[in-house]
Amino acid sequence: MTKPSTKPPSGMRDFLPGELLRRRYVITIVQRIYEAHGFAPLETPTIENLSTLLGKYGDEGDQLLYRVLHRRDALRRPLEQAAAEGRLVEESELADQGLRYDLTVPLARVVAQYGELPRFFKRYQIQPVWRADRPGKGRFREFYQCDVDITGTSSRVAEAEVCSAVASVLDELGFTDYQIRLNHRELLRAMIRAAGIDPSDEGTALVAVDKLDKIGQEGVLAELEQRRIARDAGERLLAILTAQGSNAEILARLGEAVDDAGKRAIAELAELLELAAHTPAGPRLCVRPDLARGLSYYTGPIFEIAVADLAGSLGGGGRYDGLVGMFGKTQVPAVGFSIGLERILVVMEQRNMFPALSHGPELMLCWFGVPAPEVLRVAATLRKHGLRVEVFPNEAKLGKQLEYCNAPGVGAGYAAILGEKELAAGMLTIKHLASGKQDSVALAALDRAWLAALAAGA
Amino acid sequence: MTKPSTKPPSGMRDFLPGELLRRRYVITIVQRIYEAHGFAPLETPTIENLSTLLGKYGDEGDQLLYRVLHRRDALRRPLEQAAAEGRLVEESELADQGLRYDLTVPLARVVAQYGELPRFFKRYQIQPVWRADRPGKGRFREFYQCDVDITGTSSRVAEAEVCSAVASVLDELGFTDYQIRLNHRELLRAMIRAAGIDPSDEGTALVAVDKLDKIGQEGVLAELEQRRIARDAGERLLAILTAQGSNAEILARLGEAVDDAGKRAIAELAELLELAAHTPAGPRLCVRPDLARGLSYYTGPIFEIAVADLAGSLGGGGRYDGLVGMFGKTQVPAVGFSIGLERILVVMEQRNMFPALSHGPELMLCWFGVPAPEVLRVAATLRKHGLRVEVFPNEAKLGKQLEYCNAPGVGAGYAAILGEKELAAGMLTIKHLASGKQDSVALAALDRAWLAALAAGA
Repeated sequence: MTKPSTKPPSGMRDFLPGELLRRRYVITIVQRIYEAHGFAPLETPTIENLSTLLGKYGDEGDQLLYRVLHRRDALRRPLEQAAAEGRLVEESELADQGLRYDLTVPLARVVAQYGELPRFFKRYQIQPVWRADRPGKGRFREFYQCDVDITGTSSRVAEAEVCSAVASVLDELGFTDYQIRLNHRELLRAMIRAAGIDPSDEGTALVAVDKLDKIGQEGVLAELEQRRIARDAGERLLAILTAQGSNAEILARLGEAVDDAGKRAIAELAELLELAAHTPAGPRLCVRPDLARGLSYYTGPIFEIAVADLAGSLGGGGRYDGLVGMFGKTQVPAVGFSIGLERILVVMEQRNMFPALSHGPELMLCWFGVPAPEVLRVAATLRKHGLRVEVFPNEAKLGKQLEYCNAPGVGAGYAAILGEKELAAGMLTIKHLASGKQDSVALAALDRAWLAALAAGA
Repeated sequence: MTKPSTKPPSGMRDFLPGELLRRRYVITIVQRIYEAHGFAPLETPTIENLSTLLGKYGDEGDQLLYRVLHRRDALRRPLEQAAAEGRLVEESELADQGLRYDLTVPLARVVAQYGELPRFFKRYQIQPVWRADRPGKGRFREFYQCDVDITGTSSRVAEAEVCSAVASVLDELGFTDYQIRLNHRELLRAMIRAAGIDPSDEGTALVAVDKLDKIGQEGVLAELEQRRIARDAGERLLAILTAQGSNAEILARLGEAVDDAGKRAIAELAELLELAAHTPAGPRLCVRPDLARGLSYYTGPIFEIAVADLAGSLGGGGRYDGLVGMFGKTQVPAVGFSIGLERILVVMEQRNMFPALSHGPELMLCWFGVPAPEVLRVAATLRKHGLRVEVFPNEAKLGKQLEYCNAPGVGAGYAAILGEKELAAGMLTIKHLASGKQDSVALAALDRAWLAALAAGA
């Protein structure tokens, strides 16, 4: 029998302790800062009905959904039926559930479902999502999103709050050079109208514009032409989109080009900039008329986090006032911001932004010439003192045991040596592995402070 | 267009903030205690290759696997091929990936894959698993397991350590009445031989014995007969399995009935009982000759946690020395213990074992007659003081805002009132919502200690 591959599937990853520690370091900060902004946690299931997921992410998104195969009768029935009818079975007959694709659509479903939620539901959610995308550098098929959303209010305060939360997270992680790029879906539409592009081509024009960063002006013009938008209209659009200057200057210039709906969107952006001025987001917000954001559900201001040394974004978000209404009886306005954990980690690793993180036991209990039940008794006592203790699993030469303490991945900072002499005296001999410093201590007196003092040479 | 259902799929759950808080309370304790025992964290992907999963959990397990449907060409090809050959497409042609079914098989794959792991790999893993089981009370299709495992050693110290870790968790959560039931796969096999049952019927006999708790002696006898095991052999088996008394008495009685292989297993159990005597697991371990554990990969001691008021178990585990070798070139001995988060939660809720847990903001910032940007500035300051602060999203009558603070699910403990007077003086008026106590404080002086003092009436 051939053995199965021991690698995780393509685009999926195992997280060994060292890497997991860095992930947890970031997640812990995200969670603390989101909670400081008054967001409460939510978790939704991995598997959602396809009826929940389909039609929310655009055609490309629908194609990237992971679908869960029907089982037993639910699988046999459509196969037999299609065969009887002499046709191929449809994908939609083989699955009616799929894996979570983002955290926003599940939130919209939750808001529509639970009447007991507060009117202004401020929730954060840190969970993995799955997309059957082509894996690449920093792009995985299973990855974590860290979302904050506020539902139930159209107030620009909500936009300012989610931007402030995300900016605080990045500040706390040590980012000093990021931008929060800002645009407005209604302003984009007004710019498209101002360029003389047919409103029915809005959606397709947005898809092209969204790639400006990646494929440049010529690329966008070519893609617009491919999408049957005339070159001169495309050029007019790009001339508007690429307005330069301070936030106020850009908004003023756009104001000259667009219609009343566009001017209302500009006023909203100006209000948001003023509101956020004294929050951590204030100095980071940059109006970028060419920012489009791929997802189809946005209806108002949209955001994206950019740093110079990453091609993609660290996160993004925006207002989506129509999404909850796709599930429930009433429309509920909403705005949110999502940070991509993997993107953050990639940049932090490139830039060496992590503090020293230690995992594993503090203390490896090495023993010889004493009964094993007594060793476990000592370990239980040390753990009651709050220490992280590993017990060497069998009696072996002390040298072998100490050698193992220093082996890669073990992570113990100290060895505690328990021999006949120590056991009789109720003592342990402690060795600080990095420095070799060594001292004896009464079992009852050994705690984290004593270990730190030994390492410090006190 | 009909709206999609807003419920999660059958067997799946949304966790709103209050419930999530209880889940996190338990997970945090599990994590802390596992780390105190020297275990390091691991996470593995949700999606595994079916070649990894199949054949590890028995036939029933294989049937409960969630499979991920092929996409695009990988889906079209087998459909067309089966149609061309005039046959129904096979399930195995439609999927080659599935969802994680437990945390043990992925660990075995990881141990076989990564040479850089320490020789004695002590890992813990707290992640959801998926089983397409019939949903029922306390039984879900997505649920969390909290596993500890030690690979690389056959020492009974490892068994004692995983039992100690799990017992410490239950002690810390406040359980006072649980048993850790203990048996040994080799002892079970010896008992089956001693009953005169053909060794080739071992597997099928184990499946029946495993149900003793649920269906009683008569039920097991009937099921054994169904499986072509004679009634007198079944009765002999049950007579051995149901030995009563202290651990030592039961082991002594079994020792009289079984062959040498069985006696070796008994010696291992006796060694484990002695090793664990002075650990938190010591007083909990009860030898139960009828304990079988469903999973097919166990090879040595097996464990299960029982409390009187739960039909199923709170968790289980055992030694599985053959599993890693199914993936890698070398056999690696291993032992582990898994706690079921949902089972723990069900019992803790029934018994009211949770302390008071609060979620959401500590402070709701209510405001009127002041510029909104100033409100957000105050919020940013309070958050820098470490407080969890929500900002009422728009200007409204103060009464409305205070009323909202007390609405279900909002969770704010205090209202901070910011009006013209307060803003001019750099002050806030703070109201403790539960008692109605109210006082003013300088913005710079407001922190958690001040809030606690107000609530205490100082």
